[in-house]
Amino acid sequence: MYHQLNSEIIEKMKVVSDHVLVGDDINPDYAKDEMPIYGTKMPEVVVQPRSTQEVADIMKICYENNIPVTPRGAGTGLVGGAVPLYGGVLIDISKMNKIKGYDMENLAVEIEAGVLLNDLAEDCLTKGMLYPPDPGEKFACVGGNAATNAGGMRAVKYGATRDYVKAMTVVLPTGEITHFGSTVTKTSSGYSLLNLMIGSEGTLGIITELTLKIIPAPKAVASLILPFEDLNTALSTVPKFKMAHMDPQAIEFMEREIVLASERYIGKSVFPKELEGQEIGAYLLITLDGKSSDEVDELIEQAAEIALEAGAIDVLVADTPAKIKDAWAARSSFLEAIMEETKLLDECDVVVPVNKIADYLDFVNKAGEECGLIIKSFGHAGDGNLHIYQCSNDLEEEEFKKRVEKFFDIIYTEATKCGGQVSGEHGIGSGKIKYLVESIGETNMELMEGIKRVFDPKMILNPGKVCYRL
Amino acid sequence: MYHQLNSEIIEKMKVVSDHVLVGDDINPDYAKDEMPIYGTKMPEVVVQPRSTQEVADIMKICYENNIPVTPRGAGTGLVGGAVPLYGGVLIDISKMNKIKGYDMENLAVEIEAGVLLNDLAEDCLTKGMLYPPDPGEKFACVGGNAATNAGGMRAVKYGATRDYVKAMTVVLPTGEITHFGSTVTKTSSGYSLLNLMIGSEGTLGIITELTLKIIPAPKAVASLILPFEDLNTALSTVPKFKMAHMDPQAIEFMEREIVLASERYIGKSVFPKELEGQEIGAYLLITLDGKSSDEVDELIEQAAEIALEAGAIDVLVADTPAKIKDAWAARSSFLEAIMEETKLLDECDVVVPVNKIADYLDFVNKAGEECGLIIKSFGHAGDGNLHIYQCSNDLEEEEFKKRVEKFFDIIYTEATKCGGQVSGEHGIGSGKIKYLVESIGETNMELMEGIKRVFDPKMILNPGKVCYRL
Repeated sequence: MYHQLNSEIIEKMKVVSDHVLVGDDINPDYAKDEMPIYGTKMPEVVVQPRSTQEVADIMKICYENNIPVTPRGAGTGLVGGAVPLYGGVLIDISKMNKIKGYDMENLAVEIEAGVLLNDLAEDCLTKGMLYPPDPGEKFACVGGNAATNAGGMRAVKYGATRDYVKAMTVVLPTGEITHFGSTVTKTSSGYSLLNLMIGSEGTLGIITELTLKIIPAPKAVASLILPFEDLNTALSTVPKFKMAHMDPQAIEFMEREIVLASERYIGKSVFPKELEGQEIGAYLLITLDGKSSDEVDELIEQAAEIALEAGAIDVLVADTPAKIKDAWAARSSFLEAIMEETKLLDECDVVVPVNKIADYLDFVNKAGEECGLIIKSFGHAGDGNLHIYQCSNDLEEEEFKKRVEKFFDIIYTEATKCGGQVSGEHGIGSGKIKYLVESIGETNMELMEGIKRVFDPKMILNPGKVCYRL
Repeated sequence: MYHQLNSEIIEKMKVVSDHVLVGDDINPDYAKDEMPIYGTKMPEVVVQPRSTQEVADIMKICYENNIPVTPRGAGTGLVGGAVPLYGGVLIDISKMNKIKGYDMENLAVEIEAGVLLNDLAEDCLTKGMLYPPDPGEKFACVGGNAATNAGGMRAVKYGATRDYVKAMTVVLPTGEITHFGSTVTKTSSGYSLLNLMIGSEGTLGIITELTLKIIPAPKAVASLILPFEDLNTALSTVPKFKMAHMDPQAIEFMEREIVLASERYIGKSVFPKELEGQEIGAYLLITLDGKSSDEVDELIEQAAEIALEAGAIDVLVADTPAKIKDAWAARSSFLEAIMEETKLLDECDVVVPVNKIADYLDFVNKAGEECGLIIKSFGHAGDGNLHIYQCSNDLEEEEFKKRVEKFFDIIYTEATKCGGQVSGEHGIGSGKIKYLVESIGETNMELMEGIKRVFDPKMILNPGKVCYRL
């Protein structure tokens, strides 16, 4: 169905771009993202464009010649979204990494899509501003964040990437350059192509530039570690914060086992494991922010009171940058800690209504036992987005995959049953298509496929992802 | 292109619905929305369904018989969106007006799409909750609000309707019932069909039920009237509030003339017209909210200080429900006041970057003079959404329309030039298609048309609206 790349086409690409790599010049990392279980496949050509026009010129050649194209940011995805399943051309956007400028009157920043989240976050802070989205992976490209609607820790207060994208420049599969959105705060001007692009995982167009909303940075921040006897008690505390008009920036939950693993990995112990003779079974990690230290002090006091009344065994306050860093160090290293201790790994980032988290995790743990898998989980208690890891150190890969598939069948069905969705922030990629269909149904899937064909009539852009079933 | 309705088809409809109106039973109001200049056309059949299934059954008959269908809520639109331009069947959703229930753990409310905004807002308050979207028109159906992504006064702090729709039930043009979204806080599960529906103005499907996000109602609210010498000084104050970490719920601007007209209309004078020998040229009307009276008192003090420093001539505080109502009475009656004094009327609700408002309004006023039209404007200073009215009491309708068209050509072009968009909250309907094309370009328009065909292959749903050009 796709044409084969040949030297003539590659020569055409070299005419429009000085950044075309072939053969041994291609780094083997381009064959995979951070979850290799979703496949590895080398691209035949890698292009590292420096401008939107360069992306467009390459895309146009691919369109004319029916060559599959896979866009890629920093390759930090976890569902195979950036794997060039059909070979062809991989467009690595990460060299388009300029922060173009700030518009302080409209509270916006213009960037190229390859800027790393960490770089953007730090640069914003030097201007006294905050770019609120804060996914666990700080070294993803912001373009990739937009393509997956990345969420992260602060989503509970500030929302996900979707809430911060005002406008974007996009190269369509035909090679045409277009723009969606603008630097305005609200709009009702036709179908929201901007919102359609957000979360489309590089299947409808290649995002090359972004205009993002930023906000004045909070003047004070503090974190609280709240140890509980068990997860149920911990989670039942969460709605109480909201109803008390508190608006924590982050509310993470974590079970004992994963904290132990992570502290082993980072070689530092911060979380209490036993208090007043009581073994700690679960934790909440909360961050509060405000426009003054006084306001945050007041919030800490209020949060402590609510937590203790709801069953927290203690309240540990981290109110200096160093202490906050320590409090979050374990949480930030969960994925690395699991990877370090695990030979075979898969992950699901299902999202469920917040009042269903505890029951759902009970169900998940039982399903894990039933399937003979080690399950480790943590997640965003404030928004119901769970990170559930399936781990094995002794199974053969084939057997592991078989068990994970059985496990996924069980837990995704249950997630849909309790009103949840397949992915809270990682996306569908190639790994979760089957569960997406089961969750949203054939009718919605066909609407997505129809939309895909409108944008990409030759079906050449990021084939095999999201809603593209061959 | 469409088939003619006949008695046989009408009989089929009466089999599936007890709420089919024909002939003299059809209220002539169904021929128009609140801006009759965008056309009037009587539907041949009106259905007032009571359930999603009833909508689906009617839609299916229309699909099988190629009959155009126009969905309608309360008919409060201002761009002709609910006018049955091709006759056929009008589905009036306003009898589906049940508030189905609250989910206080997930901070959500489930409603039928015909619930009036005013009823929802009041009902939420009895539960101590706030449904934040607050368009000027309180007697619109919430389904219509979702279909147009209605914004309103509080968008500056709380966002537009888009930010509060978690899930919806939709009847597709084929008559199939489907669901988009769910009661979760974030999701990356395929293309956001939910966000595509929001703002699609009844052209992709009929929204019949909604799950909406609600928040705990603020414990205290106060409004400030800030009189200024001129509009420029007033508007230059706005970014200062944001940079001071103040987050006003609403920031409205209004010029002298429109306040005078509105106070004439309501028969009550609240806004000062002259202070310290200085004639007042413009006002800001600000609402602040917080979790305690103390917090709001502090905000008032801070806002007053910022405003006076930025050139406000006085600060009038309204801190009781009665005083707040008085402060907003004039603002709430702008449209009625203009309608009362005006024979021929048209409106544009363009949105521009907030730092361009003053220059843009200068430009607009000059364009009005050039075109021989009376221009009255007010709008949302916090989000750049302007309401610009073209008024005439002495022109013939044809001449008025000619002048308005010339005026629109000038001001929409300028809006696009300065980074704005055609509509901030009213939508495109049939009235603004031409300006949408000019603003977003043929490529984006064709993407929208393509999407329209995916949802509605026979092009029977709300024909002639948004991106449907015959």
